[in-house]
Amino acid sequence: MKLSAIAARIDASLPPGTGDLDISAIVSPQSADERHLTFVARSEYRAAAEVSRCAAVIVRRGESIPGKISLETDDPYTAYARVAQLFEDVNSPWGAGIHPSAIIDPTATIAPSASIGPLTMIGAGVSLGAGSTVGAGCVIETGTTIGEGCRIDSGAIIRRQCTIANRVIIQSCAVIGSEGFGNARENNRFLRIPCFGTVVIEDDAEIGAGTTIDRGNFEPTVIRRGAKLDNLIHIAHNVTIGFDTAIAAQTGIAGSTTIGNRVIIAGQAGLIGHITVGDDSFIAAKAGVAKDVKQGEKITGYPARNLMTMRRIEACQAQLPELLKEVKRLRKEIEELKDKKL
Amino acid sequence: MKLSAIAARIDASLPPGTGDLDISAIVSPQSADERHLTFVARSEYRAAAEVSRCAAVIVRRGESIPGKISLETDDPYTAYARVAQLFEDVNSPWGAGIHPSAIIDPTATIAPSASIGPLTMIGAGVSLGAGSTVGAGCVIETGTTIGEGCRIDSGAIIRRQCTIANRVIIQSCAVIGSEGFGNARENNRFLRIPCFGTVVIEDDAEIGAGTTIDRGNFEPTVIRRGAKLDNLIHIAHNVTIGFDTAIAAQTGIAGSTTIGNRVIIAGQAGLIGHITVGDDSFIAAKAGVAKDVKQGEKITGYPARNLMTMRRIEACQAQLPELLKEVKRLRKEIEELKDKKL
Amino acid sequence: MKLSAIAARIDASLPPGTGDLDISAIVSPQSADERHLTFVARSEYRAAAEVSRCAAVIVRRGESIPGKISLETDDPYTAYARVAQLFEDVNSPWGAGIHPSAIIDPTATIAPSASIGPLTMIGAGVSLGAGSTVGAGCVIETGTTIGEGCRIDSGAIIRRQCTIANRVIIQSCAVIGSEGFGNARENNRFLRIPCFGTVVIEDDAEIGAGTTIDRGNFEPTVIRRGAKLDNLIHIAHNVTIGFDTAIAAQTGIAGSTTIGNRVIIAGQAGLIGHITVGDDSFIAAKAGVAKDVKQGEKITGYPARNLMTMRRIEACQAQLPELLKEVKRLRKEIEELKDKKL
Repeated sequence: MKLSAIAARIDASLPPGTGDLDISAIVSPQSADERHLTFVARSEYRAAAEVSRCAAVIVRRGESIPGKISLETDDPYTAYARVAQLFEDVNSPWGAGIHPSAIIDPTATIAPSASIGPLTMIGAGVSLGAGSTVGAGCVIETGTTIGEGCRIDSGAIIRRQCTIANRVIIQSCAVIGSEGFGNARENNRFLRIPCFGTVVIEDDAEIGAGTTIDRGNFEPTVIRRGAKLDNLIHIAHNVTIGFDTAIAAQTGIAGSTTIGNRVIIAGQAGLIGHITVGDDSFIAAKAGVAKDVKQGEKITGYPARNLMTMRRIEACQAQLPELLKEVKRLRKEIEELKDKKL
Repeated sequence: MKLSAIAARIDASLPPGTGDLDISAIVSPQSADERHLTFVARSEYRAAAEVSRCAAVIVRRGESIPGKISLETDDPYTAYARVAQLFEDVNSPWGAGIHPSAIIDPTATIAPSASIGPLTMIGAGVSLGAGSTVGAGCVIETGTTIGEGCRIDSGAIIRRQCTIANRVIIQSCAVIGSEGFGNARENNRFLRIPCFGTVVIEDDAEIGAGTTIDRGNFEPTVIRRGAKLDNLIHIAHNVTIGFDTAIAAQTGIAGSTTIGNRVIIAGQAGLIGHITVGDDSFIAAKAGVAKDVKQGEKITGYPARNLMTMRRIEACQAQLPELLKEVKRLRKEIEELKDKKL
Repeated sequence: MKLSAIAARIDASLPPGTGDLDISAIVSPQSADERHLTFVARSEYRAAAEVSRCAAVIVRRGESIPGKISLETDDPYTAYARVAQLFEDVNSPWGAGIHPSAIIDPTATIAPSASIGPLTMIGAGVSLGAGSTVGAGCVIETGTTIGEGCRIDSGAIIRRQCTIANRVIIQSCAVIGSEGFGNARENNRFLRIPCFGTVVIEDDAEIGAGTTIDRGNFEPTVIRRGAKLDNLIHIAHNVTIGFDTAIAAQTGIAGSTTIGNRVIIAGQAGLIGHITVGDDSFIAAKAGVAKDVKQGEKITGYPARNLMTMRRIEACQAQLPELLKEVKRLRKEIEELKDKKL
């Protein structure tokens, strides 16, 4: 790829005469050679870039590296993401069209530019939009619609009647539309509650490998536009995940909880059902959240508390053994004082 | 469905002349229209039911809604579960019988009323009972037996020689009969311990999406009748889960631990191996359980303690920063008192 | 199997004339009959072995059981592992060779002694070494190489360009080579960062059911020789797991963290990204690890602290309610002392 095309993608200017340079890949500073572009996303990586053999380097504006062709940008990390997307191979390894071993129900509607891998099953009434690719060994059940430019990785299972919008990524062994965990209890036995709802995943959302998203009881479980879910996350029935919210691996969210927009939830957090998490809030790793979270609030711990409050409590906990000793000493000294008073 | 049939299912009486009313679905109060039945499971939903356009409503006995056809029951939530099961579509989307793309070993025994979806593999000696349905992309390995009325969802993997009884549900990407995590250590290297045991899942048990149940070393891992397991749960080798016990998502139970009957375990709890959890006990979310739990005990936290004890400790933790300051003040005042004594 | 062959495998001597005894299985003491070998791995199992009907028993050197043919060894548990491997049936249930329903790209290289199960897909350029077995419903994507003697269980997904060495076990629904969770944030929206790296799994490593291992950004994610991973573990992009390290179920390790050799990590632990865990260290169950761990260190809790320190803190926490009361009493008594001084 011409360096000029890369520079144009990230609005960087180039030294005269360098635009025709051919770049084969974007790589880390330590493995860059003469055909490569690299980047300095954090200042601690600058030294590696300085000594690398890279053809060119993306840097923060005003921080060009002497002797290197430097592409200056406001945010090198974002620029790296953009350039990496330019270099990504998005072609299906099985070519365009439907692999002959795939089983496609005759009532399904598959766009001509869509791609379906080997041994994948597409059910009745499914629609698959232009440019979407489905890997090998996937199951897309009856009545599910998938929009344009989606990527469904090998082994993903999308159950009946779900709605997947455009440019959605669903990774391997993710399960979309599993039945919710609803049980009524009667005389100490459980009666299963069937789910009539679905799952709706909006544009540009991403679902990690092994993540399970249960369908709603009546209304759908909803993943809003731009939300990013990591691996092995559990999303229960009737949860809503807001716009541009990111959730790290192994977090679990119980039924009917609503997560706002631009929320960040770190790994292995757990949220109880029927609560509301406000926009722009932050939930730290392993937090156990049992009540509503306010807009912009930052919480951690179990039970989850304000981040700064919890940091103070944690610092105090380390002093607990000494505190107990000190209180015993105080008790003894007070007793002595009282004795002297007599 | 006739309203009379619904009322009969939940032992509710009907106003005269309403039994022939045709009901198309049971739905939530807010989305009910003239063809729908709804329900008031908790008093906070009553207002929504009062203003809904529903044809009829399930209510607690003595709490009928004026102007609505009210089906009075002792437990509206249980009644909702029963009626929802009436409306559930339990037909396989692939029709009865074996999809032509399924691979069935000639030594397998498939009941004529069973259904097997596309691209599913059934191994040698497997038996599948009457009315059981297996989705698409499943694997049922050699020698496994599945009883009557089971539902195995798309993408579920049941490994060799497992025993699944009747009316069991196993959801997508669940793995039944994986090898246990057993390793002997010798000179800092691990020697794998093969598992000769199996997994036994009894009548009416349910296994959530992505849940893994390891086979036993010699004796089987056992899920007793009526136990309900949510998604992404880890059940290690030789665990026993008791009758009518419910376990929420992402809980993990280590090897050879025995869980009693009617136990409730909330999400993301972790239980060490080789312990016993008594009947009718409760383990709160995220609890870390390292020793036996008594019958009827309620525990929380890590290390897990009695629920009420732990609530008191948690309340105290919030006061820790102030407590440290107070102890410092006490120290200072005692020193002053001692100085004055001199 | 002749008892002499078993004794030879574990370097145990036999009483004269017993070597020709035919043993059908190794089983637990409580279920052993006259055809069986059993073992006493811990002294509490000795009583069961003494009364069992077993043909022979593996015991610790010097602890033979009167009246039983005793195979004395330095470590009965390790000996059990070795003998169990002798009895393990490692034949593919689908026989050697490629099942006719498997889809094999013509550019793939499959060793004649390898075995591939029904409805499994092998992509372009894949190589599969001698004696390796792949179960049913697996997907091995383009360019992945798998060495000799590996076992890939039904439903496992190995994505493109991964490198699996020899004698590696990958269990059902594990996902190897999923895309890492990398996102650059710009104006509150996320830009996905494509991954150009791969996953490398070295000799004798084992990956549990439902575990997901993300591919690296540039350099690979690496699982070193002999590492053992349990079920439902999350390994993020660019993590390295050291030699002979064992990780229990549901643990999560965030991006670019390096775990040393012979580390033991218990279940449901969580490790932040970009940290280093020293050789021979121990991380307890549910620990939340946010900074480097020293060689040989033992840590627990969240935030994780030295194991002994944390045990002391936990003991103090139980005394917190009483401590608060005592401090209030001290306050009152000091006020009284001060009053008297006046």
